[in-house]
Amino acid sequence: MGAPMVPHPLSDLTVAEINRARDLVLQLHPGSVIDFRSIYLLEPPKADVVPFLELEHAGKLTASTPRPARLAQVRYDIIGGTKAAEYHESVIDIPASKRVKHDVIGTEHHASLTIFEFQKVVECVEKSELFKERFKTVKLPPGFELVIEPWPYGGPDQEDGDTRFFQALCFGRDTRSGNPDSNFYAYPLPFIPIMDARKNEIVRIDEPATGGGNDALDAKTHALGVLDHCKTSEYVPELIPGGVRKDVKPLTVLQPEGPSFAISDSNLIEWQKWRFRVTFNPREGAVLHDIRYDGRNVLYRLSMSDMTVPYADPRNPFHRKQAFDFGDGGLGNCTNNLTLGCDCLGVIKYFDGVLTKADGSAEVSKQVICLHEQDDGIGWKHTNWRTGRAVVTRRRELVVQFIITLANYEYVFAFKFDQSAGIMVEARATGIVSVVNIDEGKTAPWGNVVSPGALAQNHQHIFCLRIDPSVDGHANTLVQEDSVPVPMNKATNPNGNRYEVQSKAIQTSAGIDLNPFSNRVFKVQNFSKRNPVSGKPVGYKITTPPTQLLLADPDSIQAQRALFTKHHMWVTKHQDDELYAGGRYTLQSRRENGGVYDAAARGDNVDNEDIVVWSVFGLTHNPRVEDWPVMPVEKLQVHITPSDFFTGNPSIDVPSNADIGSKLTNGSCCKSDTASGDKPKL
Amino acid sequence: MGAPMVPHPLSDLTVAEINRARDLVLQLHPGSVIDFRSIYLLEPPKADVVPFLELEHAGKLTASTPRPARLAQVRYDIIGGTKAAEYHESVIDIPASKRVKHDVIGTEHHASLTIFEFQKVVECVEKSELFKERFKTVKLPPGFELVIEPWPYGGPDQEDGDTRFFQALCFGRDTRSGNPDSNFYAYPLPFIPIMDARKNEIVRIDEPATGGGNDALDAKTHALGVLDHCKTSEYVPELIPGGVRKDVKPLTVLQPEGPSFAISDSNLIEWQKWRFRVTFNPREGAVLHDIRYDGRNVLYRLSMSDMTVPYADPRNPFHRKQAFDFGDGGLGNCTNNLTLGCDCLGVIKYFDGVLTKADGSAEVSKQVICLHEQDDGIGWKHTNWRTGRAVVTRRRELVVQFIITLANYEYVFAFKFDQSAGIMVEARATGIVSVVNIDEGKTAPWGNVVSPGALAQNHQHIFCLRIDPSVDGHANTLVQEDSVPVPMNKATNPNGNRYEVQSKAIQTSAGIDLNPFSNRVFKVQNFSKRNPVSGKPVGYKITTPPTQLLLADPDSIQAQRALFTKHHMWVTKHQDDELYAGGRYTLQSRRENGGVYDAAARGDNVDNEDIVVWSVFGLTHNPRVEDWPVMPVEKLQVHITPSDFFTGNPSIDVPSNADIGSKLTNGSCCKSDTASGDKPKL
Repeated sequence: MGAPMVPHPLSDLTVAEINRARDLVLQLHPGSVIDFRSIYLLEPPKADVVPFLELEHAGKLTASTPRPARLAQVRYDIIGGTKAAEYHESVIDIPASKRVKHDVIGTEHHASLTIFEFQKVVECVEKSELFKERFKTVKLPPGFELVIEPWPYGGPDQEDGDTRFFQALCFGRDTRSGNPDSNFYAYPLPFIPIMDARKNEIVRIDEPATGGGNDALDAKTHALGVLDHCKTSEYVPELIPGGVRKDVKPLTVLQPEGPSFAISDSNLIEWQKWRFRVTFNPREGAVLHDIRYDGRNVLYRLSMSDMTVPYADPRNPFHRKQAFDFGDGGLGNCTNNLTLGCDCLGVIKYFDGVLTKADGSAEVSKQVICLHEQDDGIGWKHTNWRTGRAVVTRRRELVVQFIITLANYEYVFAFKFDQSAGIMVEARATGIVSVVNIDEGKTAPWGNVVSPGALAQNHQHIFCLRIDPSVDGHANTLVQEDSVPVPMNKATNPNGNRYEVQSKAIQTSAGIDLNPFSNRVFKVQNFSKRNPVSGKPVGYKITTPPTQLLLADPDSIQAQRALFTKHHMWVTKHQDDELYAGGRYTLQSRRENGGVYDAAARGDNVDNEDIVVWSVFGLTHNPRVEDWPVMPVEKLQVHITPSDFFTGNPSIDVPSNADIGSKLTNGSCCKSDTASGDKPKL
Repeated sequence: MGAPMVPHPLSDLTVAEINRARDLVLQLHPGSVIDFRSIYLLEPPKADVVPFLELEHAGKLTASTPRPARLAQVRYDIIGGTKAAEYHESVIDIPASKRVKHDVIGTEHHASLTIFEFQKVVECVEKSELFKERFKTVKLPPGFELVIEPWPYGGPDQEDGDTRFFQALCFGRDTRSGNPDSNFYAYPLPFIPIMDARKNEIVRIDEPATGGGNDALDAKTHALGVLDHCKTSEYVPELIPGGVRKDVKPLTVLQPEGPSFAISDSNLIEWQKWRFRVTFNPREGAVLHDIRYDGRNVLYRLSMSDMTVPYADPRNPFHRKQAFDFGDGGLGNCTNNLTLGCDCLGVIKYFDGVLTKADGSAEVSKQVICLHEQDDGIGWKHTNWRTGRAVVTRRRELVVQFIITLANYEYVFAFKFDQSAGIMVEARATGIVSVVNIDEGKTAPWGNVVSPGALAQNHQHIFCLRIDPSVDGHANTLVQEDSVPVPMNKATNPNGNRYEVQSKAIQTSAGIDLNPFSNRVFKVQNFSKRNPVSGKPVGYKITTPPTQLLLADPDSIQAQRALFTKHHMWVTKHQDDELYAGGRYTLQSRRENGGVYDAAARGDNVDNEDIVVWSVFGLTHNPRVEDWPVMPVEKLQVHITPSDFFTGNPSIDVPSNADIGSKLTNGSCCKSDTASGDKPKL
């Protein structure tokens, strides 16, 4: 095997590598029936990667440079034999064709779900006699058919034991338009069949109440014609009454000389002094590695680590509507295959991902990540009023974007790099809000009626961004900085205008809260490197939106499963393979296990250590009618910005040339035909 | 005068109207020498405008429709005679050629400054013997010259009485490059000459300390070679060492069919169901009026009302570094004349403003406001995983933007309309941070050394956005909504997942604070109109960034002058001409007077009334080295979003056509020459 064929340690497994790992696992379990769940890169130990990267950055890699291990994590069920399916995790050293780790996971943990399991849920409900019986208590309108929407089971009750369950939300679909994309979410049915995944059968039908705020929580009030008061709510353009707007003129991004970025070595991205690698895995989506600016380390790794979406409807069984959209599984298969001209504009580079089929063979998923540049308005400007000379630069961004669809809902995640050496991580929430049936004319305090008969339940989306910093090296410290008032006093504040900036270096791993009214910011500083101008430690600032944490009662299963939502910011000492804020096994968990809460509880020293910072932020989403049927994006943004890392504005050398494509208009030529009618008559 | 010639009541005074008002004032003060400060539209009483607008919206305006008064507010000094200059304010009814109001303003208030006064400051310092004497205590490096930067005086001391002062910051400029835009701010001098504007003379030289945090606050430590340790810090491209980046490839916005907006009646803008008017005045910049969506009233008026920038250096006289960039004056003249291809991309409509010369004649200031469309990524998206059909819309925005330069600093203000019936108001801070001299090798806790010898002092920028709502009518109510936990309990929260949304309608005018951890949002609701789907009052939600309020001691003059910074949100009952949060006269004020604090203190009923909402937000800016010499933009955004105003997502009819201009790249062709050197060698 020639040296140029060896993949970089921070690059995804190739189709060939995945297939080799699969073959080895099959050989290691002769005679067994195996259902593969996922096979993807286990990133090599940081202790091995860092020296490799240092040689790489110095241009000193040779064919004889020791290479970190090339590992595949293989997750699979062994089926049959005398007992029920058993869930295994193996780690395969691919070049060595050797298994280096093998765990049989106990039934107290549940493997992440796969799309194949979801398919079984649909089949299972369709053939269930139990369900058919209950379904007789309603009568769908003419031309309607049943739609089954599989969901994870959420937090199980005590009596559920370790059984692997799925729940299925049910809707009616109007088939009369003949359009398969007619929006069935507008017709929610009050049945939630529960499937025992090991038995492959529907074992129970939960029947949520359809009452309002004045009814008893357990009132079963649904009528035979439970969908009769619901109303069509379409979003596909050909079904929208009146059609789409005609007055949106095209707006196109032209890059006649191509993009400013360069891709090499399959996943190495260089742009405007930035340099990083991108990988894709079915748990976190796009992950960025070895992020450097102008030859200096900034971050070792950056990823969306976890998220949870708990719903606040107090009626049974809605406490089980709590998704962990990353950990529960399916993110890989739920990642959108992006389309040119839709998900971004301009000149686009797409990256494919590699997923795993049930037989363990690798399957390429096309265009799961897009990379492009965009303009974000003015970058900096100054006018010298004496001379009238204005110098203005545009703010160009490089965007790494991926989008996931989880049943009704979508998230657009983007990592945006700018020319001022800043990174912004954005989550956009869109898609269709989750609704349940509500009786005609009723309302409820735990949600909003967004369409007749459809109650959108209040819920939260709480995200965790994992930031593994390497600010001019791997020994870093998280510093909390508050700006606080100083009472007027003769000695130090004679005019009362002084305020004080209080810094506190975090010594021990912990969760910490934001405090926007003291302007609390967090900095990752390297105390062994001082800024030559200011004398302060070089650093990067992390600005997290000060949003509401989890509202569920701390003793509730929703809260116990998502301990990472207890604080806005966590700092822990780095451990290999400690990547998931909500723990490795979130599906049907009863308590977050092995997540950031437990990691912080180790009480490690994090002062001048290899630290990891976890930023928690979210959206309390009490739906508006305007969120229906597909909600306009809501955005949340975390900023990672240099703070005394450089000796000046890194974008001061961005050219200020005028764009030659811009044009003047007086606007009078372009009066549209469809503008609203109320024109001035005088 | 034919009907079509009559300007709309919500349109700026024309050059001819301003000149008529000037002529009338000159006639009314025969024999006086008059220095004009400003002449601009006094918006007619709302009681007269609203019925006019209702007829306009209904298409029922005729030549005989009664028209609201067309008024000019004229501000001027009468000079000479036996006493000092007297400041007058007259209101002129232009069609009637009649003065309808005349006030002689007492010396306890100071008129907003004009650019002519600033010019006098420079002249005054240059000829001052007092200054020349003190200036001998320093020796500029060879080739350096003195630069005078006039500033408002800030809050005066008690002994300053009513004298009108200006302060002048002093810098050295390196003339050796021959470039008039060489950045003199890198060379701050420790002199602040104080000018008595009425005497037209420098009456005092303040000499701020140049020490560090360990020196006494009043230590006068400056050396003869006070600039010798300072260092060149350029931002104009031709002076940047190494030149500008060569690897930013062009990115152009093409709108082959022109923009989607239409302009008529000189200032009426129609775009994507939106309809509003824009005016420009020298106090607030761009102001939006009569904002409607799809034929329904949303806002009567929207404007940046005020801002204050207090500095936190405790040493005398830095407590007087407190600008009110809107109220102190000069905003009109400080508004940038925007340039095609620099301040926005695409097809641009510019609006001119009309300013006033010292002789009172009108002068057109070109291109003070720009209007353009931009793409802001994904607007909404949903993929039906069953069919694979993805429907994705782009989010198009219409931007009304203006930019002001206040000596060293700039602000970019933008009102952004979207297709989901939302408005976002953005302030971007950029420009050159204010610095003072600091001795070599020293640092100080009240600022950061951003360049050798240049201490950027900690400061805050606190803005106030004035929102005059008309949500489906003018009788509106401000409602505060919190999402709060509910303890687990058998009766109402058996599973602990419930939370409660608490609404509180504000009854009496008041200032209220944000509370992000209870997800506090404010809604302007119209209790007389219910959303037919949800049953809730129609409303718009105002989402203000939960930022730190003023840090200065409440008894300090900085705090007293800016009482509007006491709360994040104010609601008052509308009064004509009550537009400025910091009061009508901010220049050299000792206490905010007639601002929003006083308005709220009236204790008016604001429940189902014609209310005004004032949103306060800011930036505590402890400068980074990266903010030097010109800082990358920092953004603050307020969102005004429909909340149960519509019966569904207003942008559901936005077409989802793929952009035909987007292109694929593999990124390998475009490897730039100037990318950083650390390429993988293997």
